[in-house]
Amino acid sequence: MKISRQKYAQIQLLKNKKYRYKTGLFIIEGEKLIKDAIKFGAEISYVAYSEKFLRTPQNQEFLNHLKNKKIEVYEIGEDELEKISDVETSQGIIAVAKMFEYSENDLLKNIQRKNYSTVVALDRISDPGNLGAIFRVCDWFKVDLVLISDMSVDVFNPKTLRATMASVFNVPFLQNVDLKNYLIKLKSLGFKIFSTAPSGKMDFHELSNENKIVLIFGSEAHGVSEELCKISDTTVKIKKFGKAESLNVAVSVGIILSERAYSIFER
Amino acid sequence: MKISRQKYAQIQLLKNKKYRYKTGLFIIEGEKLIKDAIKFGAEISYVAYSEKFLRTPQNQEFLNHLKNKKIEVYEIGEDELEKISDVETSQGIIAVAKMFEYSENDLLKNIQRKNYSTVVALDRISDPGNLGAIFRVCDWFKVDLVLISDMSVDVFNPKTLRATMASVFNVPFLQNVDLKNYLIKLKSLGFKIFSTAPSGKMDFHELSNENKIVLIFGSEAHGVSEELCKISDTTVKIKKFGKAESLNVAVSVGIILSERAYSIFER
Repeated sequence: MKISRQKYAQIQLLKNKKYRYKTGLFIIEGEKLIKDAIKFGAEISYVAYSEKFLRTPQNQEFLNHLKNKKIEVYEIGEDELEKISDVETSQGIIAVAKMFEYSENDLLKNIQRKNYSTVVALDRISDPGNLGAIFRVCDWFKVDLVLISDMSVDVFNPKTLRATMASVFNVPFLQNVDLKNYLIKLKSLGFKIFSTAPSGKMDFHELSNENKIVLIFGSEAHGVSEELCKISDTTVKIKKFGKAESLNVAVSVGIILSERAYSIFER
Repeated sequence: MKISRQKYAQIQLLKNKKYRYKTGLFIIEGEKLIKDAIKFGAEISYVAYSEKFLRTPQNQEFLNHLKNKKIEVYEIGEDELEKISDVETSQGIIAVAKMFEYSENDLLKNIQRKNYSTVVALDRISDPGNLGAIFRVCDWFKVDLVLISDMSVDVFNPKTLRATMASVFNVPFLQNVDLKNYLIKLKSLGFKIFSTAPSGKMDFHELSNENKIVLIFGSEAHGVSEELCKISDTTVKIKKFGKAESLNVAVSVGIILSERAYSIFER
């Protein structure tokens, strides 16, 4: 069945954050990401595919599989899809899914139970590509929880989602977190809080001695806010050997988490 | 003096790679990057500024400084500048400069002289943001040379330049390198060659024992080409602790170079 004007308009509207949060829906583009979403347990509202998608028997099978699961599947014109697609060359399939949210209590119980916990707190990260890359790093190095402050780019922004390359389904996260209050709470649960800063007092290699930590990373433009630095136990740096002004935030997250993961999981 | 139609058109044309290489010119946007280019010794052909730029006495002084250096300085309308600007909000200044190139012989002499050398070879990196972030990392960790294969995004692409945040002026590089032949040459000079791959044989921490190395990083879509893996001494990996498909290439460069820099400069 051909997609209705209404649903087509809805997909376009879902690029808008306000509309996403009003409806509780978000867009997933591309076969791989849709499959990973289903594996994760995301509830798919409907799927639209163009003729291009039918080129392989595997893809046809995938559509049948969706229909069997009672998911609404609609045809969409190639040009229509390109118009709403956020990628340069669409794979011919797009899904609308229900947003998901983690239970804060379950997450807290989980990180309290463990001997070693690593929480990453992001203070006003505004670039979707950076947030996506950070999710990939946090997934790769098995971070327990990602806390995202208000004033950050939305995880359900189609650009962020794509940049996570499905890692968004592997790493628990909380959005719009009042970081200050949340970090005070984690402190009372035995976590040590570390802000990252180019002028940090401690070298990041020393983090390996800590059992339960929160690592705060700030926006490229502003770094970690003074308020959050103040409630931190100390500031952490990556030593600079050359002349660069700064490191990309996802790169910094990667360097620090790599050292942390090797030291807590390989000991 | 108001900018001529011809020069205005030229700035627009300089977004095009072919035109850049035909004329040997490139665009530098923003005050900081222009200052760093001058400090580096880049030859500025001309500068265009809008009224907005004159708001501070420091900026007016900067323009006078340029004029004293016999650099042509032109006025440009706010709207005209926004049209050719590559950034969301222009800082009100744009420069056209002569491309620069490093002497291969000098570079080779330099890396041969050192006890420890680190060369980063990039195989078909296509995203300007990634190439820029890689330059920042290579600068931060004092890499001796960056080799960029053909089929890569251009360093003088305005998006790449901006993403390097001036690190392009701190790290020697060669573009359009026939990596295969070049790596064979570096091998004969005593370098060990390491390709990075998710399924690599050696863990990257073991690189700290090596004196002179080339690290090859491949494009996100294709990784390091088989041909380059074959001429490598071995493949190197970053151990995965979670489920992510892959790491962003700039993140991988950061993790490996961080370990390398701490081990060769801090021993």
